[in-house]
Amino acid sequence: MKIWQKGIEVNKSIETFTVGKDRELDLQMAAFDVLGSLAHVEMLASINLLTTDELAEIQDALKIIYKEIEDGKFTIDDSVEDVHSQVEWLLTQRIGEAGKKIHSGRSRNDQVLVDLKLYFRSCIEEMVGNTEVLFKQLILLSEEHKSKLLPGYTHLQIAMPSSFGLWFGAYAESLADDMELMLAAWKITNKNPLGSAAGYGSSFPLNRTLTTSLLGFESLNYNVVYAQMGRGKTERILAQAMSSVAATLAKMAMDVCLFINQNFSFISFPSELTTGSSIMPHKKNPDVFELIRSRCNKIQALPNEIAMMTTNLPSGYHRDLQLLKENLFPAFISLNECLEIATFMLQNISIKEDILKDKMYDYLFSVEVVNELALNGMPFRDAYKVVGEQIEIGTFKPQYDLKHTHEGSIGNLMNQEITAAMEQTLSQFGFEKVNKAIENLVR
Amino acid sequence: MKIWQKGIEVNKSIETFTVGKDRELDLQMAAFDVLGSLAHVEMLASINLLTTDELAEIQDALKIIYKEIEDGKFTIDDSVEDVHSQVEWLLTQRIGEAGKKIHSGRSRNDQVLVDLKLYFRSCIEEMVGNTEVLFKQLILLSEEHKSKLLPGYTHLQIAMPSSFGLWFGAYAESLADDMELMLAAWKITNKNPLGSAAGYGSSFPLNRTLTTSLLGFESLNYNVVYAQMGRGKTERILAQAMSSVAATLAKMAMDVCLFINQNFSFISFPSELTTGSSIMPHKKNPDVFELIRSRCNKIQALPNEIAMMTTNLPSGYHRDLQLLKENLFPAFISLNECLEIATFMLQNISIKEDILKDKMYDYLFSVEVVNELALNGMPFRDAYKVVGEQIEIGTFKPQYDLKHTHEGSIGNLMNQEITAAMEQTLSQFGFEKVNKAIENLVR
Amino acid sequence: MKIWQKGIEVNKSIETFTVGKDRELDLQMAAFDVLGSLAHVEMLASINLLTTDELAEIQDALKIIYKEIEDGKFTIDDSVEDVHSQVEWLLTQRIGEAGKKIHSGRSRNDQVLVDLKLYFRSCIEEMVGNTEVLFKQLILLSEEHKSKLLPGYTHLQIAMPSSFGLWFGAYAESLADDMELMLAAWKITNKNPLGSAAGYGSSFPLNRTLTTSLLGFESLNYNVVYAQMGRGKTERILAQAMSSVAATLAKMAMDVCLFINQNFSFISFPSELTTGSSIMPHKKNPDVFELIRSRCNKIQALPNEIAMMTTNLPSGYHRDLQLLKENLFPAFISLNECLEIATFMLQNISIKEDILKDKMYDYLFSVEVVNELALNGMPFRDAYKVVGEQIEIGTFKPQYDLKHTHEGSIGNLMNQEITAAMEQTLSQFGFEKVNKAIENLVR
Amino acid sequence: MKIWQKGIEVNKSIETFTVGKDRELDLQMAAFDVLGSLAHVEMLASINLLTTDELAEIQDALKIIYKEIEDGKFTIDDSVEDVHSQVEWLLTQRIGEAGKKIHSGRSRNDQVLVDLKLYFRSCIEEMVGNTEVLFKQLILLSEEHKSKLLPGYTHLQIAMPSSFGLWFGAYAESLADDMELMLAAWKITNKNPLGSAAGYGSSFPLNRTLTTSLLGFESLNYNVVYAQMGRGKTERILAQAMSSVAATLAKMAMDVCLFINQNFSFISFPSELTTGSSIMPHKKNPDVFELIRSRCNKIQALPNEIAMMTTNLPSGYHRDLQLLKENLFPAFISLNECLEIATFMLQNISIKEDILKDKMYDYLFSVEVVNELALNGMPFRDAYKVVGEQIEIGTFKPQYDLKHTHEGSIGNLMNQEITAAMEQTLSQFGFEKVNKAIENLVR
Repeated sequence: MKIWQKGIEVNKSIETFTVGKDRELDLQMAAFDVLGSLAHVEMLASINLLTTDELAEIQDALKIIYKEIEDGKFTIDDSVEDVHSQVEWLLTQRIGEAGKKIHSGRSRNDQVLVDLKLYFRSCIEEMVGNTEVLFKQLILLSEEHKSKLLPGYTHLQIAMPSSFGLWFGAYAESLADDMELMLAAWKITNKNPLGSAAGYGSSFPLNRTLTTSLLGFESLNYNVVYAQMGRGKTERILAQAMSSVAATLAKMAMDVCLFINQNFSFISFPSELTTGSSIMPHKKNPDVFELIRSRCNKIQALPNEIAMMTTNLPSGYHRDLQLLKENLFPAFISLNECLEIATFMLQNISIKEDILKDKMYDYLFSVEVVNELALNGMPFRDAYKVVGEQIEIGTFKPQYDLKHTHEGSIGNLMNQEITAAMEQTLSQFGFEKVNKAIENLVR
Repeated sequence: MKIWQKGIEVNKSIETFTVGKDRELDLQMAAFDVLGSLAHVEMLASINLLTTDELAEIQDALKIIYKEIEDGKFTIDDSVEDVHSQVEWLLTQRIGEAGKKIHSGRSRNDQVLVDLKLYFRSCIEEMVGNTEVLFKQLILLSEEHKSKLLPGYTHLQIAMPSSFGLWFGAYAESLADDMELMLAAWKITNKNPLGSAAGYGSSFPLNRTLTTSLLGFESLNYNVVYAQMGRGKTERILAQAMSSVAATLAKMAMDVCLFINQNFSFISFPSELTTGSSIMPHKKNPDVFELIRSRCNKIQALPNEIAMMTTNLPSGYHRDLQLLKENLFPAFISLNECLEIATFMLQNISIKEDILKDKMYDYLFSVEVVNELALNGMPFRDAYKVVGEQIEIGTFKPQYDLKHTHEGSIGNLMNQEITAAMEQTLSQFGFEKVNKAIENLVR
Repeated sequence: MKIWQKGIEVNKSIETFTVGKDRELDLQMAAFDVLGSLAHVEMLASINLLTTDELAEIQDALKIIYKEIEDGKFTIDDSVEDVHSQVEWLLTQRIGEAGKKIHSGRSRNDQVLVDLKLYFRSCIEEMVGNTEVLFKQLILLSEEHKSKLLPGYTHLQIAMPSSFGLWFGAYAESLADDMELMLAAWKITNKNPLGSAAGYGSSFPLNRTLTTSLLGFESLNYNVVYAQMGRGKTERILAQAMSSVAATLAKMAMDVCLFINQNFSFISFPSELTTGSSIMPHKKNPDVFELIRSRCNKIQALPNEIAMMTTNLPSGYHRDLQLLKENLFPAFISLNECLEIATFMLQNISIKEDILKDKMYDYLFSVEVVNELALNGMPFRDAYKVVGEQIEIGTFKPQYDLKHTHEGSIGNLMNQEITAAMEQTLSQFGFEKVNKAIENLVR
Repeated sequence: MKIWQKGIEVNKSIETFTVGKDRELDLQMAAFDVLGSLAHVEMLASINLLTTDELAEIQDALKIIYKEIEDGKFTIDDSVEDVHSQVEWLLTQRIGEAGKKIHSGRSRNDQVLVDLKLYFRSCIEEMVGNTEVLFKQLILLSEEHKSKLLPGYTHLQIAMPSSFGLWFGAYAESLADDMELMLAAWKITNKNPLGSAAGYGSSFPLNRTLTTSLLGFESLNYNVVYAQMGRGKTERILAQAMSSVAATLAKMAMDVCLFINQNFSFISFPSELTTGSSIMPHKKNPDVFELIRSRCNKIQALPNEIAMMTTNLPSGYHRDLQLLKENLFPAFISLNECLEIATFMLQNISIKEDILKDKMYDYLFSVEVVNELALNGMPFRDAYKVVGEQIEIGTFKPQYDLKHTHEGSIGNLMNQEITAAMEQTLSQFGFEKVNKAIENLVR
């Protein structure tokens, strides 16, 4: 029966509609909710809103819940609307009156804000880790196959000689640049919103500097109205950083699907890593890369979705923001899976040898010949004409001997410099400092 | 007559279609094209592809063209398809043979790439400058109006007391965070693609490190395949950074349109900065802020457009990329205008006094009373109930005396810390170094 | 352990990655998969690829499975990759050899295509039904409250008198227009792709006209290459039609959130249909409408996501298309829930009386006075000046007596015509014919 | 000097910012503005707000302006802010007092609304016309090349035989479906908003039914609040319909770019319709199709941009809507150019003969052999195994003799039915009726 027909229990419908998928999604934030509370109560004690005894009692109980979450024993009851209520309810069940006091000086709004920030930090760390592994794999392949040539295309037309060293290395360097954007997302995420309460601060004499330090944040979202404004904004920026990694992966997947196609046949994968057809016995389909491409294009659309859901909302909290979790949380998992399986597939890639020996690719070398003439003194525009005529009358002779020596070319890949640039960016995240703070909190 | 009908001159139609708006848009890149050539020829001379005399002759001619561009005397002929051809043609006209040699060791592809990078750097510098001015204006207003209260809303429902100090300061801090993303875009932009030729490098012994230094780039896009891959990617990331500033402005504009509405009436602007109606004599419309909102929402849609135009393109240059200029270039101008006019409007804003004296806002203070009881020892959840009952039976008495003292709250805005954070980010761009290099080139 | 580390079972990882959420999402298509097979086997028998006995045996078995699905007893085994395989496996289990023959003359590609079309038809019917109910509720409210006035805003500035009759009626008419787009989506959906096999047809002498008729399709996707091309395209167009309904709902939700805000206070809902705050005892938040707005904005972003995932894919099937289900299927449920709960909420709305009696709204009537003067002979531009002066010197007297009589104005809502237009569009879907065909198949 | 610096003339800056590109874009609407006025004044006379003499005088003057616009002699003065003011100003200049009266009973808001609707109708007619021409060209090519085979790909892997008959025909049928969406956009556009004034109707006894008939609209946007709500919505829906045509074109362009690539080499174009490279003498680049793809992907992003700019705006006019013209108007021109040049290019396409004779494509025929065995009595799954083994041990023999006879397959393209479906949809637009009405107005 429909809700607008008579006889339906109203509150239940409203509740179902408003809770949505919160219980399911909130489980991913449970550990971080406890961490936020651990910092908050330590701060409350420091301003005498909890006694030393109350603090100890609450900390012990929270650490037990944290352990239960880590052990997969934590669930959110159907009668409870979100993770915050579940933790508070468990606490009150277990230690009574003291449990009631932990909500002093905060609102569900800043509790969610800090949970999200802590969760995002952890997601960023995992994505960065997986990106680094893929990066190293690409550099490895670039070095391993640096002398294997490949046609380079422009306009999808045969253009000039390229190499697998260049091809793999290009995607490695692309990931290194993507990490610059991820670092910006990290910096924006790694600021403490706790203490902003419902978005307008509190009359309690909170010590936000203390919770900032306890939770390992680099600094604060100072202004409390801005702290609240960070909801939706942080998600959008993080999704933008993810979309950059995704764009790199999707492009590589497109190349792979093309290069594995029989008209190109530049690369291949073992049969057990491709799939067959229900009616065509000869197929070896690159489903994994098609799905990487598709998942990554979906992630590329995510920042726009978040913008669409948040634009034109005036300042202050709106319930709309709750729904941002629904596509963002699965995107973390999806991107990590794409990074992992791409690495795995590349560990098993086979490269065809001597691709350029095929006559079809002879014209790739036309610029080489032009340049040779130019280096020997003929003006470039004249050399270009000479070779053009040779091609037209069929006397053109390719010169297979490549002498590309400058920075970043076939003969000089500069993978060490690319690796150094990657490491330089990664070193700025400072995950250790953050993890140290978290360890201290739950010890 | 339609192109598919007989009797149309074919090549003309094809040319018109393919050139598109290039001539118009390329004018914005003209100065940067000359700069790129100045660095390229100096490098060519260093590897003996130009004699010292040729170099001097070309440099002089290029500097004259640069001056002509600055003076607004440069145009692209209808018979010439883009800025690069126009510059080369002028050069050959003026100094003959030597002019033909400047295209050695590069392709139009890397020429466009470097032009775009140089142009984007200049655009970023201007946007950052305008953002800084708006930031300072917001901080100024935050300090000036810090004691004027405002209702704070959540769910667009009256919630808790806020202040104009908080409101202005929040948008200032938002801009400070936006600059983190802009800095990432800057870092990705500020790398030299020159020398990648058509995207596969060159057999000339180019010295890419030299052009990097001459053009003031921080480092290289090392891998030449990646250098080409940066086209479209750089644009998308830059658009994402712009979208973040735009989102901040659009949100502020939405607030302004709401606050100037007669049901709120929190702020106002002089008549000459608002517009009237063709049929309603009493109107004072906030058109400027509606247009800021609209323009900024358009910019928010830009990264998605760029992604849509570039996704699923395999590696290597495609002509598709040419069209990215069409919406991106005007967006620079539009965002700068929005930043400038927002600053100007805010210089003229009037704030209503004593807004919260209206009885309608009394409930804003309910949490204050709850907290007061809690601070005096009553458990929070019990205090909440007591005040809830007072409200229900009509005995609730607000307590107008706010004691918000913690970091980032009404009584402690931390504008100095926000300013310091902004300055810290701005200092990392290093525009001076870049400008110094450019000055050296054209001197 | 990560997949790229040693010791992981490879095939399992690949399978998990490629299957994704198919099992879960395919359950929604199970009944339609059986329907497609029922039509296919009847056709196979008609071209002598099945004997009459085999046909009867298969039909009986398929109808049992159909019943099991309807009774919620059907599941997809973890060892089976999708719904098609599960049905075929069940069939072979239960009736042996004959079960193996049902895949003749088709491919999983056209099986999915036809399943999706049948499923989409059912989704469209449900969405249209829910839209019609909401439409009628809006017309009812429009009539009920037609004499209650409301300020009309332009630029969010007080402009001219409006009415609840107009306000409710406007959203009804908007839904009527939305149905035009939904009808186009229906027409594009309601064409038979079965028989296109892997997208290039079959050497079996299939009778596609027969399956078209058996499944109640209006006509065929004739060209088999186009039939396959419909995948992704149908989804995108359907999402666009949904986005139009969503845009109407989101706008209405925005109005509601504004009108329920205390500065406006035009409407209200019973307490049990709003939500409170964890720290503010006085709140009555319009969460339901905020979530309608947010969900609908998410749906507004969906067509773009689908376009991003499908653009630049050459013709022919790609595995990418499999992922389109992930956000589209939940969107059907979400939009239906939004339509239902919006109807329910509106059944419980309260309208404030005499809103325009407040002095603050007097200027709403300025145009009335101008028009009165104009009707009495004064040129419009002169009348405008006269009233403008009255407002300035404070002598303006509103004329509360509204005489709006033209089509679609306060005094002449034309709800009957709007209803007739809605019915005219709805009558073109022809759901009965489709349902009759389906009933015949499973009887 | 910046606007926020001292000494700038304020009003000028505000005006420049708010007028934006209106003057330039409004020129495209000028003729339609006059048409709207012609209908409006005839209606005003019918309700005695104009005398017969005044009407005649105004009509004559408006028709002269209409003629001037058609002759390209109409411009908008820099001192005038939009096309409506320019027309009104010209009128008053030329006929004095009577000119002042034409604004009675309308607002600039409904004037823009009706101008846009009339302009969009004309744009739709042109786009539909160009689509029909391309459709016919595709059907022609499909018939001409129906016996030329082509490899059909799935997962971009060689799959089964296809044909140029199927390939061209598929895109024709795609355009036929696209016209369903365009028809929905047409229906939503072809309703009269005039008489809604500022969005809340008028106290004048307007006869909206009369203007509906005079302007050839099918019916009214009845409810005046909805009439205003149509702004932004009509644009979005029209952009969605355009995005469908664009998606078809973009996909075809991707196919073309692939098929013209040397690894495929299925098709080619005369040299004068392709472009060369500045450094590679052998290149024949498909720039036209790359630009079609890029322009069409840009159009695919347009509905999202419009949604982003309009979502979450409450009901009633907002200045934001003015900016929708900026990307929409050029998109009409761009899509028409793409349709025209695609038709032209296809008139010049060359198809390679005997593509499938290449050994590389032998496996395309594996399903044929499987089906042959199945038709001769072997269960499908067993036949599949037999052929699979033949392929593995190298004994597989393709059977080049294709017997595809069913509806929509290689041997039975059904182009007549596709053409009939196209014509059936096109006949529903009813452009003649509309054009007749317009002719009557300006005669």
